[in-house]
Amino acid sequence: MKNFADRLIEAIKEKGNPCMVGLDPRIEQFPHFIFSILPEGLSEDEKVEQVLIAFNTLIIETIKDIIPTVKIQSAFYEQYGIAGMKALQATIKIVKNAGLVVVVDAKRNDIGSTAEAYANTFLPIGAPFEADALTVSPFLGRDSLVPFVEACKKFGKGLFILVKTSNEGSGDLQNQILKETNEPLYISVAKMVNELGVDVLGESGYSAIGAVVGATHPKEIEELRTIMPKAIFLVPGYGAQGGTGADTKPAFNADKLGAVVSASRSINFPTKNLDISKEDFINLVQKAVEDMVGDVALTLK
Amino acid sequence: MKNFADRLIEAIKEKGNPCMVGLDPRIEQFPHFIFSILPEGLSEDEKVEQVLIAFNTLIIETIKDIIPTVKIQSAFYEQYGIAGMKALQATIKIVKNAGLVVVVDAKRNDIGSTAEAYANTFLPIGAPFEADALTVSPFLGRDSLVPFVEACKKFGKGLFILVKTSNEGSGDLQNQILKETNEPLYISVAKMVNELGVDVLGESGYSAIGAVVGATHPKEIEELRTIMPKAIFLVPGYGAQGGTGADTKPAFNADKLGAVVSASRSINFPTKNLDISKEDFINLVQKAVEDMVGDVALTLK
Repeated sequence: MKNFADRLIEAIKEKGNPCMVGLDPRIEQFPHFIFSILPEGLSEDEKVEQVLIAFNTLIIETIKDIIPTVKIQSAFYEQYGIAGMKALQATIKIVKNAGLVVVVDAKRNDIGSTAEAYANTFLPIGAPFEADALTVSPFLGRDSLVPFVEACKKFGKGLFILVKTSNEGSGDLQNQILKETNEPLYISVAKMVNELGVDVLGESGYSAIGAVVGATHPKEIEELRTIMPKAIFLVPGYGAQGGTGADTKPAFNADKLGAVVSASRSINFPTKNLDISKEDFINLVQKAVEDMVGDVALTLK
Repeated sequence: MKNFADRLIEAIKEKGNPCMVGLDPRIEQFPHFIFSILPEGLSEDEKVEQVLIAFNTLIIETIKDIIPTVKIQSAFYEQYGIAGMKALQATIKIVKNAGLVVVVDAKRNDIGSTAEAYANTFLPIGAPFEADALTVSPFLGRDSLVPFVEACKKFGKGLFILVKTSNEGSGDLQNQILKETNEPLYISVAKMVNELGVDVLGESGYSAIGAVVGATHPKEIEELRTIMPKAIFLVPGYGAQGGTGADTKPAFNADKLGAVVSASRSINFPTKNLDISKEDFINLVQKAVEDMVGDVALTLK
């Protein structure tokens, strides 16, 4: 069983870039042609499920030969109820069948047997929403993360633990300076991530236990890179949230590896013209991904 | 539209106690008779869905006249995939139809439009997993909580924000002393909860924005009660996790209100004898709830 970090690094090398596309569907922002693809006679729930799958299939088909990995935001499926959860399951399979590494962004966090139940939801082989890796939150402490780490060891899966998030309010808790260390809380979390990752190292030298570090904080990224040398950084906030390719540069090690840069809205919704044709839409998505790939590659030159 | 805090306080007064039962089903721990209730010819998925619903129905029927509120832990449903999510939907309806206040314990936390999507999943009238209140985590900061607070205002719903959790490792982040205030992080979170709750006050004087404060930390509860005088505390950790009725006393205000005390495993799984009869099982569940109610009532005398 291959270590998650090794699988991800291999996919990055194969595609020649570390870009990740988020699949965060918002039906009200779908181009209109996508609804005409649906067969007739579906129930309302089936329509929701099928249109989510149709949209994601189109995006995946368009990007699968370009990028190595996809991030699926659970919230955008949960909000559509059972239909959404069926679409989540189907989407995970479509991404896997396309040969891409799939990360479910669910930011789960709980204690003891409840943390085990969440791990069982996403990480074991054959789990109902089986991903290659899962995002988790560290707020409940180290013991709340251990069941997830154990599942990663057992099943060759990965975690991305929230360390410094991309939103404006991320500092409210994460930037608080701790009296004991005279350093911000996110540094303390980063040390925990580094420690938890030590015995899940792959042959690539990277750990299956990674960190979420927002592209909107390039200075903090640099600092965090030295504290977590073996962690793969999942860097959200590129594109719609304002992060640029240059901002992500400090997330990478000298080997030009160690990070994936994620964008969602800028790729999924490249135009506000919902009457766009299928062909034009595909071209816009492809251009948006290629622009991102080019921008990120430039910073790695 | 009635404020969530008022609805919860009313239910507590009506039943004469502030006890909350968690519905955290683990199929492998179900008494065997529950499987014989199922009709024949079900698929494996239907069996999972139906046995979860049958078990929860039995617990609800047994406790509905005794306690005012139920907490449903999302993880234990998610781990069973689509069947589990269908059972979650059905369970929420059963709890509502029994006239009980239903809290979904999902500890969600995300930013911007993703936080909105999570709020849309659980809080609006007619939401796919519509609860009276939801647990959320504060790790991503104040702006990550605002979409949930807005939904509470709009739909008469409530939140319980994690402040000091019941697990051993809760101190790793939550107890860190902040340089700026010379107080632990959980105090800073408590102040944020208090502030967010100010403009969602009910006629009862309590706010729809509550706090999760573990029964395993009676000293911290006392301190937190003074910082969040208007917040309703959701106090987990009673029973299987070691918290006693006396431990929960400081969670209550002088009016003997302001907290709900939650137990799950000690009520759901009162015996290891899985060959127990239905009648004996019901009696044990009823006794476990009545013991808890008595124990908590004693501390409020």
